[in-house]
Amino acid sequence: MGQTRWLDEEQQQAWRAWLDVNTQMFARMSRELQASSGLSIQDYDVLVALTDVTGGSVRMRDLGVALQWEKSRLSKHLARMIARGLVARRDCADDRRGAFVEITEEGVAAIQGAAPDHAELVREVFFDGLNGEQVRELTTICRVVLDRLDATDR
Amino acid sequence: MGQTRWLDEEQQQAWRAWLDVNTQMFARMSRELQASSGLSIQDYDVLVALTDVTGGSVRMRDLGVALQWEKSRLSKHLARMIARGLVARRDCADDRRGAFVEITEEGVAAIQGAAPDHAELVREVFFDGLNGEQVRELTTICRVVLDRLDATDR
Repeated sequence: MGQTRWLDEEQQQAWRAWLDVNTQMFARMSRELQASSGLSIQDYDVLVALTDVTGGSVRMRDLGVALQWEKSRLSKHLARMIARGLVARRDCADDRRGAFVEITEEGVAAIQGAAPDHAELVREVFFDGLNGEQVRELTTICRVVLDRLDATDR
Repeated sequence: MGQTRWLDEEQQQAWRAWLDVNTQMFARMSRELQASSGLSIQDYDVLVALTDVTGGSVRMRDLGVALQWEKSRLSKHLARMIARGLVARRDCADDRRGAFVEITEEGVAAIQGAAPDHAELVREVFFDGLNGEQVRELTTICRVVLDRLDATDR
């Protein structure tokens, strides 16, 4: 690898600010979601992932990839959500490539109940201080990083 | 609350890109840290928090605030790190306001071993695609959000 390339001063400032926003934003979203709907941010992410797809049913493996969760974490979490009636497991007799997970009516009600307050929070905290230029610049920056993540994956 | 203010199209794009960068960046950092040093990203965060302070010792409560972890999560995680010799608990006879945690020599060695590869990863993936202007703009954007997080905390 040769000499370590540490972050320069400006990169350090950006990185620290980025990490701080993440930590604080997720803590805040998590606290408010829990208070308003009893969902954790992980529950919310799972329900959104299952709502985004046609039919509301996703192969477990694909859900793991979408959420970037390891298999054991995903099955433990889904077991708890199944017990609470938010999602259901569906086995396919004619498809041996693994089980599907689908959102239940209760899950749909939970996400519909939680979504307005959650959207309001994201809008108020994250976007109300930014102008249109900054929002577009943020998208550009994030997409550069996403491309780099992809290009450097080993 | 009145009418829900959903995100507009550009805000949705930015928010989705931001969430994707987070998910993928943390998954990648986590995978590489684990492979190179056996540390999880949470271990790394704890060790960094203990390295940043003078004396290398922090009151447990303050560490929880810095990491934004709930008390039970923090004590469970620290118990595992104590068992691995990375940190140690220190009780203060003349201070009843709670226990301190400090980094051990083994913890210092672990963070020093992990830091160069971790810095290289952040630099290569996150910063190498961005120009100086974008790095400064990202810092500005993040600080706006941090101020909003602060100003809207209830």
